[in-house]
Amino acid sequence: MMRRAIERKREGDALDDATWEATIAAYMDGTVDDAQMAALAMACVWRGLDRSEAAALTRAMVASGASLQYPRELFVVDKHSSGGVSDIVSLVAVPLVAACGVKVAKLSGRALGHTGGTIDKLETIAGLRTTLAMDAFTAQVERVGCAIAAQSEAFVPADKRLYRLRDHTATVPSIGLIAASIVSKKVAGGAHAFVFDVKCGTAAFMRDVRQATELAQTLVAVSQQFGRRARAVVSDMSEPLGRSIGTGIEVIEARDFLRGEDADARVRDGCLQIATEMLALAGVSDPRATALGALRSGAAYEKFIEMIEAQGGSRAALEAMRVTARAHEVKASHDGFVTAIDAVALGHAAREWSTNEPTGGIRVAMRVGARVAKGDLLAVAYGAHASAKRVAEAFMLGGEAPAARPLAYATI
Amino acid sequence: MMRRAIERKREGDALDDATWEATIAAYMDGTVDDAQMAALAMACVWRGLDRSEAAALTRAMVASGASLQYPRELFVVDKHSSGGVSDIVSLVAVPLVAACGVKVAKLSGRALGHTGGTIDKLETIAGLRTTLAMDAFTAQVERVGCAIAAQSEAFVPADKRLYRLRDHTATVPSIGLIAASIVSKKVAGGAHAFVFDVKCGTAAFMRDVRQATELAQTLVAVSQQFGRRARAVVSDMSEPLGRSIGTGIEVIEARDFLRGEDADARVRDGCLQIATEMLALAGVSDPRATALGALRSGAAYEKFIEMIEAQGGSRAALEAMRVTARAHEVKASHDGFVTAIDAVALGHAAREWSTNEPTGGIRVAMRVGARVAKGDLLAVAYGAHASAKRVAEAFMLGGEAPAARPLAYATI
Repeated sequence: MMRRAIERKREGDALDDATWEATIAAYMDGTVDDAQMAALAMACVWRGLDRSEAAALTRAMVASGASLQYPRELFVVDKHSSGGVSDIVSLVAVPLVAACGVKVAKLSGRALGHTGGTIDKLETIAGLRTTLAMDAFTAQVERVGCAIAAQSEAFVPADKRLYRLRDHTATVPSIGLIAASIVSKKVAGGAHAFVFDVKCGTAAFMRDVRQATELAQTLVAVSQQFGRRARAVVSDMSEPLGRSIGTGIEVIEARDFLRGEDADARVRDGCLQIATEMLALAGVSDPRATALGALRSGAAYEKFIEMIEAQGGSRAALEAMRVTARAHEVKASHDGFVTAIDAVALGHAAREWSTNEPTGGIRVAMRVGARVAKGDLLAVAYGAHASAKRVAEAFMLGGEAPAARPLAYATI
Repeated sequence: MMRRAIERKREGDALDDATWEATIAAYMDGTVDDAQMAALAMACVWRGLDRSEAAALTRAMVASGASLQYPRELFVVDKHSSGGVSDIVSLVAVPLVAACGVKVAKLSGRALGHTGGTIDKLETIAGLRTTLAMDAFTAQVERVGCAIAAQSEAFVPADKRLYRLRDHTATVPSIGLIAASIVSKKVAGGAHAFVFDVKCGTAAFMRDVRQATELAQTLVAVSQQFGRRARAVVSDMSEPLGRSIGTGIEVIEARDFLRGEDADARVRDGCLQIATEMLALAGVSDPRATALGALRSGAAYEKFIEMIEAQGGSRAALEAMRVTARAHEVKASHDGFVTAIDAVALGHAAREWSTNEPTGGIRVAMRVGARVAKGDLLAVAYGAHASAKRVAEAFMLGGEAPAARPLAYATI
């Protein structure tokens, strides 16, 4: 059976639903081994999966494990980011949307490569738990209005095995396989609507707008096959989204934003766009104004505190958080424009420095496009082992202002 | 290392010699597992290997095991067929070329799918051994002038593992991988010149003349990289080459041909062409006339007997061989032309029937293109379990004569 399926995909045929179902079931029970699965995965990278195949694979993967379900009368929204640097959107948008009366059940992952993980960030708040039992998680969504928890091991075990194999065999870059991996976990999470934030650019897993857009379209189409509402935003990840890079340092940025301090325009727009799409999917009228209202009134910040307390943290612990005192300033070596910031390098550096010092990391003072004079502060590296030199090397200064890059390339 | 190599091949890059060497060495010592190798193999099917890569992979595979070497003053020729039905060329050409004074060291395989294996055929001669120790094999080549033995387990163990994996993971059809598999075994066999008989057509592993020609060119080019002389013939395999299909039944056809009985024109031409190329590579002048002379004089037949005796068989055993008496005649159901013969079906059937009855199988009486009248004999199925109906179904009769097909499409 499996050899024939690999052959058909190798020759460019679409596999039918029953074949995908049988393939994943056989992979999980050991009838199909890693070698056959790796060959099939490479054939998928080569030939691609059509929408119907991506949906069939998603369904087969969901069937490999447990799923959550919410009561019929509850409308629950989830969001997903494909991974970025200084991506504090979940920390901001989840309580913000909940403060507008829409339930948010966010299942998150950990840091991967140079990108941060919401779970790692939240765990820097003293006492906070991210491993919630399924019934505790759904009860918190119902009672508090939102929860952010680590993806349960019981969800989509086929994805865990398949993703590990794909990583091992260099068969990750297939839009169909990526979409099935993402959507299967969202479907198992039980929410009724998903917003996908597909990052695109030099610091994203997708570098090409066309490919990112195709992934975004596939994510939405496959989600709709499961009767879920879905939207996707293709957003820029060619420089850090916000000003902070690390774990606790990003929680501090999200906290300050939620409690009304002046935020960087780019991260503010990024958070509001995702929150707006989430509210729109839930049928909230004038969603952007509603979100802005919840932000200005302080309701969003209070919802953030309420969620943190429900998960074992406290207002005092959150409000006591400070960026580590060991600061190393990075200054412009000459006059010019910031033409690029290597967010991959900064993401790796901040991940190192925040490992033992939870509020260590990087704060960026100048964005791409900023005009700087020699001696101006570009960024600060925080931590006992932080290196100003390493941060300085990530800043490219040039004689001419770079072309402006939009924050979002497309909304689907 | 391996993940990077898979990625590079996935993106269409050529891998350098050191990478191929390291990959095969790591696969053999277990550092690289089947899953990574399967992904690489599928990427090779997708992107192909250039000549230099095919040569590097061949070299790496040869290095995985033992190799034979002949004394400098001996010039030794080997031949290879990519597998066909009723392919008695090795049985005829090996003693024929040796009878002309050119040493032939033929390492052979067993039946694969619908195609026959020279080793299986030879073993129907009572007493004959095909498993020869390496020194006995080379000594026989030196003394008798020819030997046909089973590929030693000590040769190219990497090919055995890789071929099994490719078969399991549907990653066989890559010209570069096929060429490396074939040439590595020939190089390890130690001969100085190789003739490759690349079969092409409905009953060959390659169905397309363009692809078969590309394989033939690759086989010759890679062999030359090892300082070997090489030629290749792309020959038709859209109907059985000779009149007999089976094991012992094919030995009988080869025996009768070698001892001067009237042979079918197509199989005669096929054998003479390969023998001629082998003699030409050895520098024999007027090779075709030389081969015809050795055939007519009976020298080729005597060399066949000499080889059989050297390997434990006897003239008496060979000459006593008779097709099994259980014959089932297959007759034309109506007037017409034989437009096609399904050699794959006949190959599978004959392989079944000759398993327990070594001289069971099929004899074809009418070739493609023959004009037949209702009731004419088309073929005979031999064996207790042989089925005339199954053979009849393999014969397509039509109202018009089919276009003539050449025996050889190209010589490289």
